[in-house]
Amino acid sequence: MARALASGSRMLMLDEPLSALDARVRMELRYEIRRIVKRLGITVLHVTHDQEEAMSVSDRIILMRKGRIFETGTPLDMYRSPKSIFAAYFIGETNLMECTVESKRKGGGVILRLRNDVPVNVSKSKANVGEIAILSVRPEHVYTATDGLKAHVRDVVFMGTYWRVRTEAESQDYVDYNIPADSQMPEIGEEVYLVFNKKASRVFKRPKEGLTEAIKLE
Amino acid sequence: MARALASGSRMLMLDEPLSALDARVRMELRYEIRRIVKRLGITVLHVTHDQEEAMSVSDRIILMRKGRIFETGTPLDMYRSPKSIFAAYFIGETNLMECTVESKRKGGGVILRLRNDVPVNVSKSKANVGEIAILSVRPEHVYTATDGLKAHVRDVVFMGTYWRVRTEAESQDYVDYNIPADSQMPEIGEEVYLVFNKKASRVFKRPKEGLTEAIKLE
Repeated sequence: MARALASGSRMLMLDEPLSALDARVRMELRYEIRRIVKRLGITVLHVTHDQEEAMSVSDRIILMRKGRIFETGTPLDMYRSPKSIFAAYFIGETNLMECTVESKRKGGGVILRLRNDVPVNVSKSKANVGEIAILSVRPEHVYTATDGLKAHVRDVVFMGTYWRVRTEAESQDYVDYNIPADSQMPEIGEEVYLVFNKKASRVFKRPKEGLTEAIKLE
Repeated sequence: MARALASGSRMLMLDEPLSALDARVRMELRYEIRRIVKRLGITVLHVTHDQEEAMSVSDRIILMRKGRIFETGTPLDMYRSPKSIFAAYFIGETNLMECTVESKRKGGGVILRLRNDVPVNVSKSKANVGEIAILSVRPEHVYTATDGLKAHVRDVVFMGTYWRVRTEAESQDYVDYNIPADSQMPEIGEEVYLVFNKKASRVFKRPKEGLTEAIKLE
């Protein structure tokens, strides 16, 4: 990298610069690369297969799929408001649930029906009333409550900063959520009720090729 | 993996089974491996350079360094109560700050002095009064408050589920902390006051070989 910079280039291409490194070193060097690049004011095309790395080093992500540009945007936009199901699924983690759009109110507010007729409210939907759609909710936007989507805890995994809870919901979907590492861990088999952050939920039209194909990785 | 299992082995050695895969696939397969292993009730020795993978698939971590076993424990113990600075630094992320132990109270409660005489209170310390020590606080255990360790924001990085804020503190330490992705992002250069979760802070004796050497990666 130093040699390339010494040539006076204003643009640098880094092809998986951190992929061969240990995860701990990789995290440190991410910040370092970004710091140097910003200080020098140069442009870097940084190729990576690590989504967190992409989000943390870049000003703009170009998401490639099957050798073509699939979607572009700032890390923030792409994480919060992905244009496609593939981006929602690929950048970060998300729960995808098949649903039908039951009704839409003018001022906002959409009622969906998951499988087994379970109702869910969200703020907006790209699919129209009557259409089959895909609801996308990230694990950090799923909370437990006294009422909501009934689910059973199937697995609890320690992730360091949080517990990842995997549940099987009455809508036949697997729904994951996170709880802080210092909170009470749920029991395997325990019944929980899940609610979704309405504003952070995304509803996509069901892809013509089917959901499995739409999120398929190479 | 299927072939190895078909042989009827009760123990399986997986040497970096997921390292060549895309991060997104890796995350999915982690759960899958754990699920299969638990269902079959076999023992797996799973070698990885990915700390999060180690924490999320295993019942017990054996941390190797320079070809030797360095520390062992459950993921939870190793993350929350690492026995060594190296484990604290290597498993997960942590802020390390040089300090002196000023006083210890019988019932618990330790006062430390960071560089520039900045006082910090923690619950317990492995170092004795008067000794130079190393304070370890994970980013998720650092909060902003109206008073505390004065620091200036140097960088803010989007991580998807959270913002990582990197600050430079009056104790001359770089201190990182996390804020939820939907909260107000601090400005670069902004002055903030940091406090540490007392119970989650760890104080280690200063390693004889020096801090840099103690956390050095191969």
